[in-house]
Formats: sequence, C-alpha cells, structure tokens
Amino acid sequence: MAVTVEIGRQFVSDEDLEVIADKVKAAHQLIFNGGGPGEEFLGWVSLPENYDKEEFARIKDVARRIRETSDVLVSIGIGGSYLGARAVTDLLQPDNDDFEVIFAGKSLSARELNDIMWRLECRDWSINIISKSGTTTEPAVVFRVLRQKLIEKYGEEAANKRIFATTDREHGTLHDLAVDREWEMFVVPDDIGGRYSVLTAVGLLPIAAAGIDIDALMAGAAGARGDLIDEKNTAVQYAAARNILLGKGYDIEVMSCFEPSWASFNEWWKQLFGESEGKDGQGIMPNSMIFTTDLHSLGQYMQDGKRQIFESFVVIAEPISDIQIPEDSAEDDVGYLAGKNLSYINDKALEATIKAHSDGGVPVNVVRIPRIDAYEIGYFIYFMEVVCGVSAYVAGVNPFNQPGVEAYKRNMFALLGKV
Amino acid sequence: MAVTVEIGRQFVSDEDLEVIADKVKAAHQLIFNGGGPGEEFLGWVSLPENYDKEEFARIKDVARRIRETSDVLVSIGIGGSYLGARAVTDLLQPDNDDFEVIFAGKSLSARELNDIMWRLECRDWSINIISKSGTTTEPAVVFRVLRQKLIEKYGEEAANKRIFATTDREHGTLHDLAVDREWEMFVVPDDIGGRYSVLTAVGLLPIAAAGIDIDALMAGAAGARGDLIDEKNTAVQYAAARNILLGKGYDIEVMSCFEPSWASFNEWWKQLFGESEGKDGQGIMPNSMIFTTDLHSLGQYMQDGKRQIFESFVVIAEPISDIQIPEDSAEDDVGYLAGKNLSYINDKALEATIKAHSDGGVPVNVVRIPRIDAYEIGYFIYFMEVVCGVSAYVAGVNPFNQPGVEAYKRNMFALLGKV
Repeated sequence: MAVTVEIGRQFVSDEDLEVIADKVKAAHQLIFNGGGPGEEFLGWVSLPENYDKEEFARIKDVARRIRETSDVLVSIGIGGSYLGARAVTDLLQPDNDDFEVIFAGKSLSARELNDIMWRLECRDWSINIISKSGTTTEPAVVFRVLRQKLIEKYGEEAANKRIFATTDREHGTLHDLAVDREWEMFVVPDDIGGRYSVLTAVGLLPIAAAGIDIDALMAGAAGARGDLIDEKNTAVQYAAARNILLGKGYDIEVMSCFEPSWASFNEWWKQLFGESEGKDGQGIMPNSMIFTTDLHSLGQYMQDGKRQIFESFVVIAEPISDIQIPEDSAEDDVGYLAGKNLSYINDKALEATIKAHSDGGVPVNVVRIPRIDAYEIGYFIYFMEVVCGVSAYVAGVNPFNQPGVEAYKRNMFALLGKV
Repeated sequence: MAVTVEIGRQFVSDEDLEVIADKVKAAHQLIFNGGGPGEEFLGWVSLPENYDKEEFARIKDVARRIRETSDVLVSIGIGGSYLGARAVTDLLQPDNDDFEVIFAGKSLSARELNDIMWRLECRDWSINIISKSGTTTEPAVVFRVLRQKLIEKYGEEAANKRIFATTDREHGTLHDLAVDREWEMFVVPDDIGGRYSVLTAVGLLPIAAAGIDIDALMAGAAGARGDLIDEKNTAVQYAAARNILLGKGYDIEVMSCFEPSWASFNEWWKQLFGESEGKDGQGIMPNSMIFTTDLHSLGQYMQDGKRQIFESFVVIAEPISDIQIPEDSAEDDVGYLAGKNLSYINDKALEATIKAHSDGGVPVNVVRIPRIDAYEIGYFIYFMEVVCGVSAYVAGVNPFNQPGVEAYKRNMFALLGKV
C-alpha cells in the first residue's frame, strides 16, 4: 500500500468499528459493484484501467504542442473543472519549469480577471476551456472576454488553433461552439462527476501541459484500485472512523499538512468531501490548515477550543526539498539547530503537533504518503475518492449528486433576468 | 458609520438580545475602560490616537528608503507578525506597483524558502524581521538563512543597513542582536498582542513599503474608535449576536466575500477571533470562503449540510475594478450579459447567495464596507478588533491570551533537544 491511514484509536474503539462493519462492507460493495444511489456516476472507479487510450495519447501530444507555442496555458473552469488540476500542478510542477498554467474563470471578480490579462501581456498563450455544458456563468463569461483578447492578438484563424475545449462528447453549448469553430476537443465523461474528474481530460490536459508525467499519475491510481478493491484496507477503515466520529459529535474534519504547496490539494479534498457528504442536513464540514503557519493563528483553537473537530494529518515521508541551517556567530537562539536540515525540524514540529492536539482532546488520524511524485499523487487521489464514496454511502447519502448548488444559481438567473 | 453589520434577525430575536444586554454592555465597558482579564493588553484601543508620532514618521521615511534601494522587502514573521500586513497589502497595494513585499518565516518548509530565495535572485532586497522576543523558531531560522544570503550579496556592512528589526523596546534576543549589529529598530509594544498589532510598526512598515497610505489607515481606525466608543453600535450588536448564535448550537462562523483579494483578510480575521475566543473548551470555530469560487466546492455543504454554521458576508459597496462583457456573435449562452459589468453580475451572485443560504437555514449577517481604500480598511480593522474583544468578554474568556499555542512548542523543543 502506498498511502495508508492510521485511525486515532482512543476515540474509535474495536466495538465502534464492529457496530458499523456490515454497513461499511455494503458501502464498499456499492462503490466497486454498483447498486447504490448515483451508481450512474461510478465511471471513476474503473477509470485507471478503462480510460480512452487514444484520447490520452492526444492529450500528451496537445500538451507538447501548447508548450512549444505558448508560455502560458489559461485553463478556464470552476469547481471540479480546476481544483484537481491546480492541486496536482501546484504540488508536482518542477520548480525550474518556466511554463505557467493560469487558472481562470473561477470567480466573477473583475480584479482577478484584469490581473490575469495583465500577466498575459507580452506572452504567448493558449486557452483550455473546461465545461460539461458550457452554460456555467463564471467560465462562460471569462471565456468570452479572453477569447476576444486571443483573437485580437493572433487573429481569428490562429486563435482557433490555440483554443482547446474539454466538454460533453455530443451535446451542449460549448460542444456546438467548438464544432463550429473547429477547436480541438476532449471529453468530460457522462459517468464521472466534476469532483471525481481530475484523472479525465478535465484535469489531465492542464496537468500534462505543466510538464507532469500523466502516465505515472494513472499508474498510481491503478495501483490504488488494485489495493482497495478488497474491502480490508485502511481507506475503508478511515471511512468507517469518519462516520463514527461524526456520530460522537465531531462534525468538522481538518486536513492538516506541514507543506505549504499542499494547500491546493486541501481545496480539492474539501470539494470532494463537502459536496459528496454535505446534504440532507447532515455531513462532516471539511476544513484544512497548513502548519506550522496556521499553528500561529488557529493553533489556539485546535488546542483548547470547542471539541467538535477531528483532524487528519497528511504526513509525507520523504522531504520534497531541503536546506541546511548554517552556522552563524550571532546569538539568535537557534544556534542549537545549526547543521540540521529544515525538513528535520519541520518533521519534529509535526510529531509535536500530533501529540499536542491528541493531548488536547482532538481525535487524530494520520494519512501517510511515501513521497511526492506523480505515482503517489495518482494513488492518493484514487484513495481519497474511495474513502469519500464509501463514507457517504455509510452515512446514507448519495455521494454523486449536488442538489444544493443550484439554489443560488436559480436566484442569480432570476436577478439577472435570464430567460 | 463606515462599516456596519446587519444581523440575521430570523435567528436572533429582540428577546435574545435583551437577555444578554447587560453582559454586552459590561463587555463593551471592559474594552474601553479596562477592568477585565487581560486588561494589560488593551493598548490597541487608544492606539489610533496615542501612537508614537516620531516612530510613525520614521516608518514612512524608512519605507521610502527601502523602495529606493530595493525591489523587494522580505518581511519575516509568523502569526500576528504577518497576517495583518499581508491582508492590507494584498487588498490595497496598487495593481501597477512593481515593488514586492514577500512574507517569509511563516513555515518550516524548505520548498517555500528555496522558492523565496529563487525569487530574490537578480533583485535588490531588504529584510524586515518582526519578532517580539526573537526566539520564535520559524522566523529565527529563516532570518538566519536569509541574513547570510544578504551578507553574501552586499557584504556585512551594507547588509546591516538593509535589515530592519521590529521587536521589543528594551529586551530580548532580537533586540540585543539589533543593537549589536546596528540595525534600525521599531517597537512591538508591550500592551498590544500579536493579533491586535497590525496598526503598530509590526504591520505598518511592510504596509508603507508596499506604497499604501498609512496616515489614511490610522485615520480610519480613529474614525472607528470615535464611532464605537458609545455602546450603541452595530459592532457591539454583532458581538452579541455571535454569542447568541453559539448558544443555539451554531459553532462555526464562515466569513464570506465575493472578492478574491479579500482572502488574506479572512486569514487575519480567523487568527483574531480563533485565538481570542477558542479556549477553555469553547468558542466559535472561524472559517472563511471566497465566492463564487467556493460556491462550486463548499456551496453544497453551505446550502444543505449540517446546520451548525452561521455566515457573515463582507459586502463592498463600490467595485474595486471592472470589465464590461463584450458583444460576441458566438452562441455561448451569456449573450444576455453583453454590455453588463462584471461587478454587476458579481453583485447579483452575492444577493442570490445571501438569499439561498438564508433559505437553507443558515443564519446570515451582512458586514457592509463602503469601498476598499486605506481609510475604510483601517476602520474595518479597528471595528473587528472591538467586535472580537467584546464578543470574547461576553463569552467569559480572556480575549488577549493564547495559552494553547505553547503546547506543540514544548513538545517540539523536547524533540529537538533544546535546553
């Protein structure tokens, strides 16, 4: 097993696990064999083996072409259409890579869009518009603005060669527009919802454009599938523990990591779990922190505040990067750390925090990842998707719908006079 | 009143407010007249009038000098020593200003520090080290590393003219080192805790270096002081409502804003409230979201999840920036928005979300700010500090201590063998 979870057993007893064992086993079956609510969206389960090999090869070709002709890929999408790609890119893009992926269309802020346009001046760029229907307001509006900028810069014909549309296979506003303008197209599958879509073209094209090895990413996901298809594994145990903790009143889960470049992964994880479980007036509220940064702001609350929180630490075994603390004649109180690596000090802070929060009455789980590379991240993505699906089925909700996200849109369209 | 709060009255009745009115009045008195636990840390209350005018003028001079000799100011600090400055800088620094403030020393990540050093190559830079004692591990270690880089680049004597220390007036590791090396010094006052310190030299030097009008910032804070010194105001009512909502089981507050450049302000606000109230096993867990971005990830939970959340929307009346949606012949489903401003659409999304979340059973407060400028932000900072102090006193906790943040440090020092 590449990724594993150790459950905080002082709050989750053998008996607790025994009580819901049948429910958990059934939930695991619903994920791998179907039969539950939302089963039409289980395409992600077999994806690591059953993906479209022709399209996958084309993604790699197009990514190479984009890198040759552009300094920047503007990836336009919101929610599941950017969170996975940004998470992987922030974590895995080589530090010395000059190519930039800018994520746009994820707000209605003019300041954000003006800033993006300012960053595009004097650079060559292409667009990947990602939208199943093409009708989501944020990406549609931003795409209209940026498409005109692209045409101004390159002319209509050349601009059309710089636009790549990831959308529905057969129908929809964006599909039809892409056919009309002859933009190269990639598919958002019908049987995979947005928040489970990072390993489809939705995530893979921007990830590949960032110079990341998508073969290794898929191999990691396939490795996880192989490990998790049997119900005896720590992903399933973690899903069980989450429900037990919720039943005991711990209704917030904080995902904590000691590596700042993990921050976008936390955002991906929050959508995955919040949107899958937060329905019917129930569900664990997902939250996240980056330490030691947030120990100096939210650490007080974690240590001594209301005890409605459980915490899951992402622990990365191998350092991503390092610096040795230099010798210095100054009496600056850190002389005792000279010669030590910063990663070593960070690891001790992590160990210290796990103990402190446990002592403070926070149930703590530890999610261990061997190292940060494309294989392990592919594995982690699939692992968490399984945890999420099983956990939601145990809670008795459909992990694959999101009825609540329409409420504000209905109000907004009424206010904007959309007919 | 520049900033005001409308309380969601469907969850907070006149009777609820009546029940705690005496407690709230007493809490307001403890903030403006002292007499409560932690009263030795009330220096921020009179700060907008009683600040050190000589030091203030020197901050402006030094900021000007830093901008003349450097492309970048590396501000080294953690918790209250960076959150306020970053919040103000992210929001108010002019978009066309090339000078950069980099916030360092806020984690133990080697990847983050290596990235910062990479960004400093080929640029001129100075350091502002901010630490009351000088012994906090993160800034001390990062300062040691960056100090050596600065000396390598400029030589010891010139480097010493590029280091500015904001620290204790009389004692401590950093104070003594600064005296020894003849670094120019600024004061972290004894009577103002870290999370209330943004309007002292702690925040003002990096803010001024970013080209922001700190006179207007202080004037805004003074304006708020004038408005809030009488207990009949919406800051005090908001503090009351927060406690009423907590009493009814709403133990998470989400601060939501539709402007992405507000994100760092949310982080400042989370420290202020989380560290002030999260103690003795109680307190509201502060959380934050940026919309419409997070409506597409956490919107489902906000709309339909467990009802333990109340929400406070930051509403900015005047747009910060704008873009008109262009005409376009493409059938892209947003033709009905052509000619409209993006800020108008964003405002409608905000209005729609307030209604949707209210309808979904979330108690909603609305914090209104007339516009984003230095005066209004100074006002907002002081306003929220008053809300926080009053709210914590109503809850019966000391708003000015943070006993829990030591727990992980004790464990860490033991693991690192510090004697």
